Amino acid sequence: MITIFVEKDGRTEQAPKFDRAWLNPASGVHVWVDLAAPSIPESLILSDTFNFHPLSVEDALSARQYPKAEAFDGYLYVVLHGIHYQKSDHSFATHDVDFFVGPNYLVTIHDGDSRTLAELREHATRNTRILSEGPVALLHRVVDGLVDGYRPEVDKLEDRIDELEKQIFERPDPALVRKILAEKREVAGLRRIITPQRDVVSRLARRDFVDVSTEMSFRFRDVYDHLVRVADDVLIFQDRITGMLDAHLSNVSNRLNEVMKVLTVVSTILMPLTLLTGAYGMNVPLPQFPGGEHAQFWWLFGISMTVVVGMLAMFRRKRWI
Amino acid sequence: MITIFVEKDGRTEQAPKFDRAWLNPASGVHVWVDLAAPSIPESLILSDTFNFHPLSVEDALSARQYPKAEAFDGYLYVVLHGIHYQKSDHSFATHDVDFFVGPNYLVTIHDGDSRTLAELREHATRNTRILSEGPVALLHRVVDGLVDGYRPEVDKLEDRIDELEKQIFERPDPALVRKILAEKREVAGLRRIITPQRDVVSRLARRDFVDVSTEMSFRFRDVYDHLVRVADDVLIFQDRITGMLDAHLSNVSNRLNEVMKVLTVVSTILMPLTLLTGAYGMNVPLPQFPGGEHAQFWWLFGISMTVVVGMLAMFRRKRWI
Amino acid sequence: MITIFVEKDGRTEQAPKFDRAWLNPASGVHVWVDLAAPSIPESLILSDTFNFHPLSVEDALSARQYPKAEAFDGYLYVVLHGIHYQKSDHSFATHDVDFFVGPNYLVTIHDGDSRTLAELREHATRNTRILSEGPVALLHRVVDGLVDGYRPEVDKLEDRIDELEKQIFERPDPALVRKILAEKREVAGLRRIITPQRDVVSRLARRDFVDVSTEMSFRFRDVYDHLVRVADDVLIFQDRITGMLDAHLSNVSNRLNEVMKVLTVVSTILMPLTLLTGAYGMNVPLPQFPGGEHAQFWWLFGISMTVVVGMLAMFRRKRWI
Amino acid sequence: MITIFVEKDGRTEQAPKFDRAWLNPASGVHVWVDLAAPSIPESLILSDTFNFHPLSVEDALSARQYPKAEAFDGYLYVVLHGIHYQKSDHSFATHDVDFFVGPNYLVTIHDGDSRTLAELREHATRNTRILSEGPVALLHRVVDGLVDGYRPEVDKLEDRIDELEKQIFERPDPALVRKILAEKREVAGLRRIITPQRDVVSRLARRDFVDVSTEMSFRFRDVYDHLVRVADDVLIFQDRITGMLDAHLSNVSNRLNEVMKVLTVVSTILMPLTLLTGAYGMNVPLPQFPGGEHAQFWWLFGISMTVVVGMLAMFRRKRWI
Amino acid sequence: MITIFVEKDGRTEQAPKFDRAWLNPASGVHVWVDLAAPSIPESLILSDTFNFHPLSVEDALSARQYPKAEAFDGYLYVVLHGIHYQKSDHSFATHDVDFFVGPNYLVTIHDGDSRTLAELREHATRNTRILSEGPVALLHRVVDGLVDGYRPEVDKLEDRIDELEKQIFERPDPALVRKILAEKREVAGLRRIITPQRDVVSRLARRDFVDVSTEMSFRFRDVYDHLVRVADDVLIFQDRITGMLDAHLSNVSNRLNEVMKVLTVVSTILMPLTLLTGAYGMNVPLPQFPGGEHAQFWWLFGISMTVVVGMLAMFRRKRWI
Repeated sequence: MITIFVEKDGRTEQAPKFDRAWLNPASGVHVWVDLAAPSIPESLILSDTFNFHPLSVEDALSARQYPKAEAFDGYLYVVLHGIHYQKSDHSFATHDVDFFVGPNYLVTIHDGDSRTLAELREHATRNTRILSEGPVALLHRVVDGLVDGYRPEVDKLEDRIDELEKQIFERPDPALVRKILAEKREVAGLRRIITPQRDVVSRLARRDFVDVSTEMSFRFRDVYDHLVRVADDVLIFQDRITGMLDAHLSNVSNRLNEVMKVLTVVSTILMPLTLLTGAYGMNVPLPQFPGGEHAQFWWLFGISMTVVVGMLAMFRRKRWI
Repeated sequence: MITIFVEKDGRTEQAPKFDRAWLNPASGVHVWVDLAAPSIPESLILSDTFNFHPLSVEDALSARQYPKAEAFDGYLYVVLHGIHYQKSDHSFATHDVDFFVGPNYLVTIHDGDSRTLAELREHATRNTRILSEGPVALLHRVVDGLVDGYRPEVDKLEDRIDELEKQIFERPDPALVRKILAEKREVAGLRRIITPQRDVVSRLARRDFVDVSTEMSFRFRDVYDHLVRVADDVLIFQDRITGMLDAHLSNVSNRLNEVMKVLTVVSTILMPLTLLTGAYGMNVPLPQFPGGEHAQFWWLFGISMTVVVGMLAMFRRKRWI
Repeated sequence: MITIFVEKDGRTEQAPKFDRAWLNPASGVHVWVDLAAPSIPESLILSDTFNFHPLSVEDALSARQYPKAEAFDGYLYVVLHGIHYQKSDHSFATHDVDFFVGPNYLVTIHDGDSRTLAELREHATRNTRILSEGPVALLHRVVDGLVDGYRPEVDKLEDRIDELEKQIFERPDPALVRKILAEKREVAGLRRIITPQRDVVSRLARRDFVDVSTEMSFRFRDVYDHLVRVADDVLIFQDRITGMLDAHLSNVSNRLNEVMKVLTVVSTILMPLTLLTGAYGMNVPLPQFPGGEHAQFWWLFGISMTVVVGMLAMFRRKRWI
Repeated sequence: MITIFVEKDGRTEQAPKFDRAWLNPASGVHVWVDLAAPSIPESLILSDTFNFHPLSVEDALSARQYPKAEAFDGYLYVVLHGIHYQKSDHSFATHDVDFFVGPNYLVTIHDGDSRTLAELREHATRNTRILSEGPVALLHRVVDGLVDGYRPEVDKLEDRIDELEKQIFERPDPALVRKILAEKREVAGLRRIITPQRDVVSRLARRDFVDVSTEMSFRFRDVYDHLVRVADDVLIFQDRITGMLDAHLSNVSNRLNEVMKVLTVVSTILMPLTLLTGAYGMNVPLPQFPGGEHAQFWWLFGISMTVVVGMLAMFRRKRWI
Repeated sequence: MITIFVEKDGRTEQAPKFDRAWLNPASGVHVWVDLAAPSIPESLILSDTFNFHPLSVEDALSARQYPKAEAFDGYLYVVLHGIHYQKSDHSFATHDVDFFVGPNYLVTIHDGDSRTLAELREHATRNTRILSEGPVALLHRVVDGLVDGYRPEVDKLEDRIDELEKQIFERPDPALVRKILAEKREVAGLRRIITPQRDVVSRLARRDFVDVSTEMSFRFRDVYDHLVRVADDVLIFQDRITGMLDAHLSNVSNRLNEVMKVLTVVSTILMPLTLLTGAYGMNVPLPQFPGGEHAQFWWLFGISMTVVVGMLAMFRRKRWI
């Protein structure tokens, strides 16, 4: 779907068709062309009308691009990623948003999943001054919206990590290692997405590109700060997950220790008694304890109890029980 | 709460209201405006009177900013973090302090928790020359106070780590892993706070900003040194905690070894004796030892003792007991 | 095998022999000389006709060079690696492709395994305009082909890692550690190949070399993006394999725990019962349970069942069974 | 204690009092002022006579400074660390040495523990030309002495590590983990001391400061080389200690394996025999072996020996014994 | 031993004595002075005749220098390391080779172990043009020879690592950990030697020093490539050894698992049978199985077999046997 907004003399209107005359900066208009999941005929506007470089057009129309900002003759080509909730596996997914920023136009290309752009299109139909600050201000608006979309996803991830951490300490279970490793991958994936975006926005904030005015660089610096905080949170998550793995492994070892202690305590108490009963079961006359035949059992019982109590005292001293 | 100090002709006085004429550097006055947990009407001074950039005003009024120093037209915007003891969970917490440094004014914004600024306000009512060195000197004073506040917190953290280390070596306990990981997170958090502050102060010391004189850069270099030492201590803490985890895991393994040795020693000694008593309990005539019926027991007793002593000697040689 | 293509006035033709006059850029021709596994006499063209520096000739003719781009007087010497499937051990292998890029010629040297160059030679016999954009455009074409060749290999590697991951979680087996370490080496090897290539292509894209025009730098930037994405995938693989090792070690520990629990549960239940039978096998009169001689067994049976049920309840509470 | 040496016309003499006229470079004298653990009145010379910046004076008089070199107006302020043996805990300790290097003077401040400066003072009373090369040459002399002091301490550390390594492989003991971690901390501490000093000396060698002549920079380059070698040794120590921890953990695991093998071998051999004797102790008529009542025992003995030999053969095949 | 070669008018001859006139570049001669394990009188030529800086002379005559390249007034001082096989402990050792490179002379100092220099001296007696390209070309020749000497040593190391890897997977043995750690140190040592040499040669290749012509920089670039490949191999070795440690630890754990499984299987099968025989050995009348006194045994035998088969089936299902 192709949507065109054109601003002239401070009024923004939706235009049904793109007029080539607008490409002349001297025309005094600001144009925003939004291509949402463009069909092949719709996408021809990029090469035929705007004459963008074939390589950037190819990138803009292909699926998974790496975030980047590249200057071409007469325009700036930017790729950034938005984030959206993926119902299928309850995790987040990203979608490319591509920007062509010219002297008086902004072209955005995306696969139609971007809520930020849907809202902005809707907004542009009501706000007649949305384009009056020029294409870079509009770029900032979109980028700001995309980056704002990360925060709720990061918060959801944090909730999942909190929950997992609680489980590890309170209901340890060998199967948790799989969940820990899954979250680790999710966090590493998020980091891999954030870092290049931060670098792209940093370049916009540092005015690496001449089209960005001082005022606009202030705004991008603000977006950059948001991304730095998200990246910082992700680093904290990584530390926490590493700690969770350590805690999990420690749990496993402790449980083994506990199992072995039970075995050792039981064996060490019962084996001497079993030996004693074995001895008194031999077909060999044993020395008699004083007190007659019926006192024998109670002697043995007394010896056994002494062994049990002695062993228990020893284990208590070793802090095993 | 808004507090205004104005210095003219070497005398600092508290002013009830801000006079726009002071904004003119030619007025020859130095002004310090402190906003402690400002109400919304109070905070309007930032945008209405000082005309600060909306983005920096927004940052100054929002809660958790990342430490940074940014030059805007006509002023410098700095965010740093103070530290204060948090009663609720016996750990440290940070609070933002925001600075706007102009040619002849300093504006500070904070949430009212900062002891450094409370003391400085109190000090300014008595010392009439506190503003005579200009706003950057006052900035240094606040920053120095904030950074000095880190030392006692770092010392408390060190005490906790000392205590934990003692426990690990003297009273090993599986549950300690949780405490170790908690301290690890605390230390990582502290490091994450210190590093960006160090970078901000380093920029002030390196005179990245024209408003900082050589004399002032010397003072910030001094603050920078303090932060470097704190950061260095934090690195040492990280090494120690890593060592504690290693020691803890080694403890757990050693205890398992100890438990298994007890089981093995007891089993290995008692099982042959149990076999012997079993053999003499069989309903099968066994070869007799010389010496008559009553000598049989003593022969068996002698054999058993030989087995026991032999086993013990073997375990001693293996250094298991 | 030596193949020579020469383009003049927009027509590319295969030439049987190299004409020294072509070396003069003023001759207006573009030449591509491809040496596939050249014999020694064939390789003499490098030193005798082109007068390339002996060191670069030696590098071009030797087997395993590190990817690099070096400017020599009058030409650029580039080494890159193609990838091809190795039937012998079902893994990928690389082959060097060497390039000499002059003002109006491109010389390629390789061991004949490169499918990219075979296809390009075949293509050149049909497309008469293939050389009309000059030698750097042809260089880009070859480099693009080589880099495109990585994708299927990386995908195959990903399939193998997916398969291994599934095995680790579903059919854990101690022998898997060997396979994990083998894949780890494969991934590390791939990373070691990609990184220097990415650096070489990055230098071409950044126009470190004067022979590369802006238009050509755009194309190399595109190739660079491909390599960045491959390198990013390899990093993901490394993370996954590290996670697989963690999961594997955790599996091994869990299995030990499981084995020990079985031993402990069985021993702890049966040892008290064995002691009881031992006691009733002693040649010593024991106190009698009420109910006559034949009730004794059922008393003992009842006691045993109580012990078994009690133990099972305790193990259930400890979540061992 | 304050000691003053002044050189004029090639003769160095000890002076009882500092003459302010010497501060004028045109006076043609070279002065060395050494403050060993200065009293407060003695330390006033820094601020009153030399007019050093209050911040550098404060640093010079405070206890634990980080190594650094800072240019102030008219002088260079350097902090370095000497090393000395600490009797109390048989480890090394460091002490600050502070330097103020002016156009014709050197001021050294330290806590009196520095053997290097004690020797140099003693030397200056005999060598009348010691100051003739100027204050930077004297600075080099002190720095060289301080750095030379590291070598014997590093050698002692190496001896301790050698000894520990021998113990780990020859007399493994769980308690060694504590010693290993203690040495690890010592090595990390040494590294933390060396690195900033190396950086300071590197800046002197690279002539970051104008007061350092080419000749002097050669000398500091030499000191720098010494520090590089010490830092390199410390890195080797870190690797070795990491290896020692690995070896220790491997030892612990091996011992557990050994213990478990003994238990398993003994249990597996004796349990079938115990079962056999148990069976022949039952009050149930068993099938008889041929050969009459007295042959029964020898049959059972034969069966038992077969079991024992078979088991031993199996364990031998598994390489457990 | 001191050996002097002098080239004049394209003829190289060995000279018995050094002629000071040669030091004048205008003399038109090229000189190579080789000091092999020089005696003290021989080494005086460095300070007396060549007037080298005392610090570089001291470095050249001292034993273990770190690789470096330093410009002094009028000459370049370079230290590199050769490698040679050490019979005593079957490992490689390094020896320093020091170079003084002047406008028309090269001085080499070494301890006499260098085969490269022995061969070059021998070569110089036969090849009269060896010095005609000047001292830097000769320097390249020696450096090239030294670096070529690394390859066979690296190959030997690779063979040892291959052998060790095979052992770990095929004949695991706890003692291997010591060998693994020994190779790890050897590899780390090699890396520590290669890296600074690579940096020195890189500086020669990058023409950091004016004495190196473009042509010579090409040659050093070639040497640099060799070192890069050696360094790359060493990195691969490090990865492999890390993998070997992981595999070894995994082996140890697997063996423990195997031992424990045997114990558990044997105990779990025999303990119920022992209980059964114990029960039938009690002096208490048990309920009788139908079929008369002699059927009792066969009933018990049948129950036992059922237990054994049932247990084995369970262990088989758990994949323990």
